[in-house]
Amino acid sequence: MTNQIEIDHYAEAGVNIDEGTHTVELMSAAVRATYGKEVLAGIGAFGGMFDVSAFKNMQQPVLVASTDGIGTKVHLAAQFNRLHSLGYDIVNHSVNDILVQGAKPLFFLDYLATSKLEAEKMASIVIGMAAACQAVNCALLGGETAEMPGIYMPNTFDVAGTIVGVVERSQALPRDNLTENDVLLGLTSSGPHTNGYSLIRKILANVDLSKTYAELDVPLIDALLAPHRSYLTILQKAMEHPASPIKALIHITGGGFLENIPRVLPKHLAAEIHLNSWPVPALFNFIQQHGNIPLEQMYRVLNMGIGMIIVTAPENVSLLEELITEPLWQIGQLISGEKRVQLK
Amino acid sequence: MTNQIEIDHYAEAGVNIDEGTHTVELMSAAVRATYGKEVLAGIGAFGGMFDVSAFKNMQQPVLVASTDGIGTKVHLAAQFNRLHSLGYDIVNHSVNDILVQGAKPLFFLDYLATSKLEAEKMASIVIGMAAACQAVNCALLGGETAEMPGIYMPNTFDVAGTIVGVVERSQALPRDNLTENDVLLGLTSSGPHTNGYSLIRKILANVDLSKTYAELDVPLIDALLAPHRSYLTILQKAMEHPASPIKALIHITGGGFLENIPRVLPKHLAAEIHLNSWPVPALFNFIQQHGNIPLEQMYRVLNMGIGMIIVTAPENVSLLEELITEPLWQIGQLISGEKRVQLK
Repeated sequence: MTNQIEIDHYAEAGVNIDEGTHTVELMSAAVRATYGKEVLAGIGAFGGMFDVSAFKNMQQPVLVASTDGIGTKVHLAAQFNRLHSLGYDIVNHSVNDILVQGAKPLFFLDYLATSKLEAEKMASIVIGMAAACQAVNCALLGGETAEMPGIYMPNTFDVAGTIVGVVERSQALPRDNLTENDVLLGLTSSGPHTNGYSLIRKILANVDLSKTYAELDVPLIDALLAPHRSYLTILQKAMEHPASPIKALIHITGGGFLENIPRVLPKHLAAEIHLNSWPVPALFNFIQQHGNIPLEQMYRVLNMGIGMIIVTAPENVSLLEELITEPLWQIGQLISGEKRVQLK
Repeated sequence: MTNQIEIDHYAEAGVNIDEGTHTVELMSAAVRATYGKEVLAGIGAFGGMFDVSAFKNMQQPVLVASTDGIGTKVHLAAQFNRLHSLGYDIVNHSVNDILVQGAKPLFFLDYLATSKLEAEKMASIVIGMAAACQAVNCALLGGETAEMPGIYMPNTFDVAGTIVGVVERSQALPRDNLTENDVLLGLTSSGPHTNGYSLIRKILANVDLSKTYAELDVPLIDALLAPHRSYLTILQKAMEHPASPIKALIHITGGGFLENIPRVLPKHLAAEIHLNSWPVPALFNFIQQHGNIPLEQMYRVLNMGIGMIIVTAPENVSLLEELITEPLWQIGQLISGEKRVQLK
């Protein structure tokens, strides 16, 4: 229920912030740094205030909102005390979730809940969130921290959040002109992002995660905890281009390729994914081999190295290659069919 | 990450909704019933879309957003399988939290997380949320349900949510004209609302909650689980009155009287609360006696029968009594002082 400075979290939860550590002080500054002129500071505000007078310059402003959590990746992060990156995970995941509707973020609110509140740890997560918010010009407008022994297992916590963004209705994605032979362009992921960790943890339960295996060039835990990438900045120019080369964006989250691609398909179209058309990162092969997992399940649970897919007309591929300054993998195309995904 | 119909929750979480029970079907209809024309349905949307073109008729539209949970009240509710009312709890709590800034709700997004997803139970909560949203003309725009064994204790869950509302900046509360001798008017609560349950559960750990005690006219559990009241409808006329008789609203949540009242006070004002100026409901006395709790702690943790406080000028009390059709308890006044609350 608090706002303005997330430090209120701790006051509310009964944590004495006079004991405030350096991390907690840093948190306060980090959150403030996300505030643009739109964020109105009120005395003792219960909710965060965000001025949207600028919407008056839009034709038909539409708010796009999404709530999500980062699932059991928190387990791994907690085990290795790598909390900072969880903040990036939840914010970037959320940014991508509304990006696929064409929206740019306005503000984010977090929800942290735990069995026993430890200010330092929570502050680390919030600092990560603030940094991720600042990178995409999004205010970390508020949040809530709850201490709930008896609900959460000892030494565990949950991280969730809500993002609100805006899009001009005429610019919203997906567009309604998807058609056969449209090309699917894949953007590289930084790792499994925030999905598939229940499976990953099960498979790797008896594996030394701190070891650097021959197949990987970093310790396994580093590969597993790489923060979820935000695709906002890299896609911005292409999204704003007058030729509208992006017909749809697909964020590869829980449900992998098989369940996320159909979300943008009209009834009469299906997608064909060309396996081996991009370099699947070694981590995914490592997971597959250790778990002896069928290929289809891999593509249903994990992103396989592709975090975001662009749907575009074949004639716009070269324009997109100019506008987006990183590799665009031609991973497949739309075909006639019934909202299905075919791995070829 | 889903939207539109909360039923997606279950599909995403791997629950087969073809096994759909009557409750799950009801949920889908209940959520749809909260959608006005502002809610835009898109194919496979990742985030909920809410048209705010109407903001163009406002001078300076300001979004007000708040994230909160309902704390350990979920424990009691789960124990007695009274899940429906938790939906009202989280929504009404949130509605009140932004009401104190003068905002009316636009939409709400929920976050439900549990050790093991049981569709019937989650649907009961969502149906309660939808009903509470519909009552205040708020869209239940989206949400997320997470199954996280190992994070949540077996058979437990957490309920949180985010509300987004709007206020014309010139109408935002609190106003800047609070002054000595302003009157505090209390509005009745329906029970402890959503705060103080960790204390309550500790105190009543060995008490039979299903019994109707002499002091109470209903079973103890009914009194404890009475849903959080929304004050939006009852206050609407007074908030829209051209004389602006409401200077500030104070939602009595976690922190009770002692920590919430100062949130609206300028540096040079304090509040004096006149004990015995309103009828404290029997439940609070029951709790106090069983726990042998100091009076000050009661007022720091619980709402003592007052869920919302209006700050107004003495000359506007009678106008408010006309505009608000239920008892307004004159529970205290503003005095010179330093943002403190004095119980008298």
